[in-house]
Amino acid sequence: WQEGCSPKPASLLSVLHLILVSLLGSAILLSEMSHHLPHSPRVHGFLMVLMLASSAWMLCFGWQSRKTEKHRLNVDHHAGASWLKAGLALFALATLILDCFSFGYYREILHCTSPLMIAFPLVQAVFTVTQVSFLSSFAKVCIQDWCCLHRVGLMNSLATNLLLWMNVVLDESTKQLRSIYMEEQQDSAHNTTLSNSCACTTDLCHIFRDGAAHLHPFNIEFSLFSSTMLYVLWKNLGRVPSSLGPQARARRPAFRISGIFPGLLLGALVLSATFGCMIVFGVFFKAKDTLPHALQIYYTFSLILLCLMLLSSCAGTLVYRLQKRSSFTFRTKNVVRNLDVALLLGCSCGPLAICIFSMTAIFFTGSLSSLNSLDLFFSLFKTLQVLGQNLFISEALFSGPDERHPTAQFVLAGALNKSFDSESQCAVWSTMESSMQVQMDEDEKSRVLKMHDSPHMGAAAFQKPFLFTSRRRGRAKIMQNILVFLLLCNIAVWILYAYGARPHLVSETEQNFYGFTLWATVVTSCLPLGIFYHIHSAASLFEVYCKSQLN
Amino acid sequence: WQEGCSPKPASLLSVLHLILVSLLGSAILLSEMSHHLPHSPRVHGFLMVLMLASSAWMLCFGWQSRKTEKHRLNVDHHAGASWLKAGLALFALATLILDCFSFGYYREILHCTSPLMIAFPLVQAVFTVTQVSFLSSFAKVCIQDWCCLHRVGLMNSLATNLLLWMNVVLDESTKQLRSIYMEEQQDSAHNTTLSNSCACTTDLCHIFRDGAAHLHPFNIEFSLFSSTMLYVLWKNLGRVPSSLGPQARARRPAFRISGIFPGLLLGALVLSATFGCMIVFGVFFKAKDTLPHALQIYYTFSLILLCLMLLSSCAGTLVYRLQKRSSFTFRTKNVVRNLDVALLLGCSCGPLAICIFSMTAIFFTGSLSSLNSLDLFFSLFKTLQVLGQNLFISEALFSGPDERHPTAQFVLAGALNKSFDSESQCAVWSTMESSMQVQMDEDEKSRVLKMHDSPHMGAAAFQKPFLFTSRRRGRAKIMQNILVFLLLCNIAVWILYAYGARPHLVSETEQNFYGFTLWATVVTSCLPLGIFYHIHSAASLFEVYCKSQLN
Repeated sequence: WQEGCSPKPASLLSVLHLILVSLLGSAILLSEMSHHLPHSPRVHGFLMVLMLASSAWMLCFGWQSRKTEKHRLNVDHHAGASWLKAGLALFALATLILDCFSFGYYREILHCTSPLMIAFPLVQAVFTVTQVSFLSSFAKVCIQDWCCLHRVGLMNSLATNLLLWMNVVLDESTKQLRSIYMEEQQDSAHNTTLSNSCACTTDLCHIFRDGAAHLHPFNIEFSLFSSTMLYVLWKNLGRVPSSLGPQARARRPAFRISGIFPGLLLGALVLSATFGCMIVFGVFFKAKDTLPHALQIYYTFSLILLCLMLLSSCAGTLVYRLQKRSSFTFRTKNVVRNLDVALLLGCSCGPLAICIFSMTAIFFTGSLSSLNSLDLFFSLFKTLQVLGQNLFISEALFSGPDERHPTAQFVLAGALNKSFDSESQCAVWSTMESSMQVQMDEDEKSRVLKMHDSPHMGAAAFQKPFLFTSRRRGRAKIMQNILVFLLLCNIAVWILYAYGARPHLVSETEQNFYGFTLWATVVTSCLPLGIFYHIHSAASLFEVYCKSQLN
Repeated sequence: WQEGCSPKPASLLSVLHLILVSLLGSAILLSEMSHHLPHSPRVHGFLMVLMLASSAWMLCFGWQSRKTEKHRLNVDHHAGASWLKAGLALFALATLILDCFSFGYYREILHCTSPLMIAFPLVQAVFTVTQVSFLSSFAKVCIQDWCCLHRVGLMNSLATNLLLWMNVVLDESTKQLRSIYMEEQQDSAHNTTLSNSCACTTDLCHIFRDGAAHLHPFNIEFSLFSSTMLYVLWKNLGRVPSSLGPQARARRPAFRISGIFPGLLLGALVLSATFGCMIVFGVFFKAKDTLPHALQIYYTFSLILLCLMLLSSCAGTLVYRLQKRSSFTFRTKNVVRNLDVALLLGCSCGPLAICIFSMTAIFFTGSLSSLNSLDLFFSLFKTLQVLGQNLFISEALFSGPDERHPTAQFVLAGALNKSFDSESQCAVWSTMESSMQVQMDEDEKSRVLKMHDSPHMGAAAFQKPFLFTSRRRGRAKIMQNILVFLLLCNIAVWILYAYGARPHLVSETEQNFYGFTLWATVVTSCLPLGIFYHIHSAASLFEVYCKSQLN
């Protein structure tokens, strides 16, 4: 990993910049939360300054790189996959619609809010458009010039995205907590009157407000996706990936649907069942007397879903084990893979924490009512499912496409481009793996040369690999079905978490055991992680699926 | 970094084990905090089980490795420095004394506590002794056999240490918060009576209790030091460091005191001034009417101290820059160095967060009374000092001993052992650096060969290096003085934080701005990080000092 840029303390400086900006932003955001001001000019002003600075830097970078075309050559092909860009564009589109709704909403309630609030959606729209065009043009680039400036610029944009994410999450959490508080207050004293001068009066205003509320989850994902892509750019800054070019591009994964009908069908069934369950749950959840019934439906449905997901994760891991081509190691130098697994593990702490806190509370209070035992089983299976899925996805991400039994076509290509992997510095697999591969290529080259000498011998030598290939094809199809099914399940769980009501906040055993404040803190800080965990799992599964099509 | 152990998912499994145990422990610890039970059998029972399991694994490991002596050869010489072991032994000793005091205290109040509480100090003593002997014997080892078991064992011990740390920190924080709450309650209503049946009645009991209270900071550092050493062991597991052996051992850093009198003297002055200030502050802090006076003294003293530290950090960085031998890079493969810098940056988030939250509060409330402006300047200088110190220590840690102008003796040794650094896999410096060094060695070899051919020419060639050396010596002496002074300053700040009263908790501007709960949460979660930051800085500075003696 040769460092092209000389000023190395720049990376430390940019990390310090990230820390300082994030802490400053957190201080401002948290102070607003305690003042219970939903539309504070202070927070939005700060975020607008950050967004404008980031946009300015991105435009500068784009303008500068238009002049010097040379760093287009320094590209890390594992970064910025096309499906990632497509996902980013989708989330950006939702964010733009959200900005339109917000703009309309703030215009309607202009009498009780500051003019700054109207400017905020506009600035956010500019930032979103700039960021999407920046990331889709330069996601693969290993930046080589002006390293110090660009490092700080990247970290500034990263901090902006993180703070935007934190702002939305805090807003949503305080709204939920306030509705629960209000319910309790209304229960205890019916004579409290809601004196909200900023309430919507027109129908248009209601439409804008409700529309915006449904688009927030997409905005959250947009910030997180952008953050990971910016981080990869930061890590790749100054790197010089050598002759990876044409070979890697020729073997780029593609998305094709063939032979995965069972997986798609089952997944679609799960998705539609989720929508059904969500609607029923939403209706029953509103009233106090049908609340236990709603929880029962939710837990039962989730238990079935989790069992299915756990089974498919286990089956997937088993198939990988049977193929015995696990090359899983933590020490690969590929930034994108390492980041994927680290994010997966980090985010899985969210759902794991909620489940383990629930289980501890139920275990120690010892009250096993029917709802509590459902909750206990739900938490147990959720834990197992998350653990199993982590193992499966890590194994799948690190085991590259099988290069040991290549088809005839690949043998020739491999022999011709023998030097490819030994020279590459942005290699997908660990050094051990790649050195092994070079050996393989050596063997295959000699085989191919032999074939050229005696064509009859060559035909005989092809028999065994082809028999082997058909069995491998069968396994690959099973694996692809599992991947598609698990992908759709994760999207289902994501929808359930992002839009469905949250039963954890109302379960009383945990509230009594930990106290309301502590339990609400745990749930509201861990749920966003859980939501991101499932969308990130889905993204990783999609990538593995595309990779598996290469075989 | 060849992976000797085959089952690679073992590392993932052990990380998942760490996450699960930590979350379970956190759930149990936090549930006790909300119940306000200081001596809970549940928490202590859980911790005892963990400690016994870890001790059993360590004994197993020791017994097993006594039979097979071969993995003594696989050693990472950068791990487990001897001063680290000495520090660990010191903290362990304090922990053992703490255990004696705790045992005595619990015996005295046996009538109102469970018998489990008496067993706890005994188990902790066993655990402490086992862990110290384990770490001092095997800190450098790169484990090669039974990888899966040992990975999980290491992570289990790491989780135990983290939970022990968390337990003490939570205990201390709740005690402080309770004393503040009590003061407020007593202020508002004087008729509340303390009905504590578990209060100490005998003098002996008081001595035990107060003695234990003074030893907790050492116990905290013991857990954290052990955690970092266990993490290094985990990261080194399965590695095969090659021919580093004899050469590295010959060049092991040593601690010598010569020519650092000014630094030592100034540092000792600062230390004694700190003790004086702490006593005065402690006396004035107790009474409500002298509280502002106490805060004034604290802030003024801290401001002077911080200015001195900032200046010496800047001077140190400047000297390094003048020497132009900064080889600072994030991409070195040395586990210990990377961990050091990551810990430094991570822990510095603690003091930085408190300072930035303070500054934000004072800036937005806009009330600049004399105390507030002192607080503002204190926070500003603290931020600058932490940033400067981070830059200085990172630069110092990554720039190895200067190999470019070695003395005559070293030239010969370098020429003879030319192949040393190009082969080493546990190299201290980055690959770029080491390749540069090989070139240097090449040059020097040819010079030495020339000298052998014509001794008169050789004498002339020695002139310039010797002149150069004397100037370098002068710079090295300045640097050593700076290092020693900064080391003692960090110890002074550590003492101030660990034993002095905490003025952040009582400052009213921040309390009003963020609300008491949020501010108390920020302070109590960030202060332990700050304490560890200063002890870790001192340790790193000590290491850099020892390394600088090589020149």
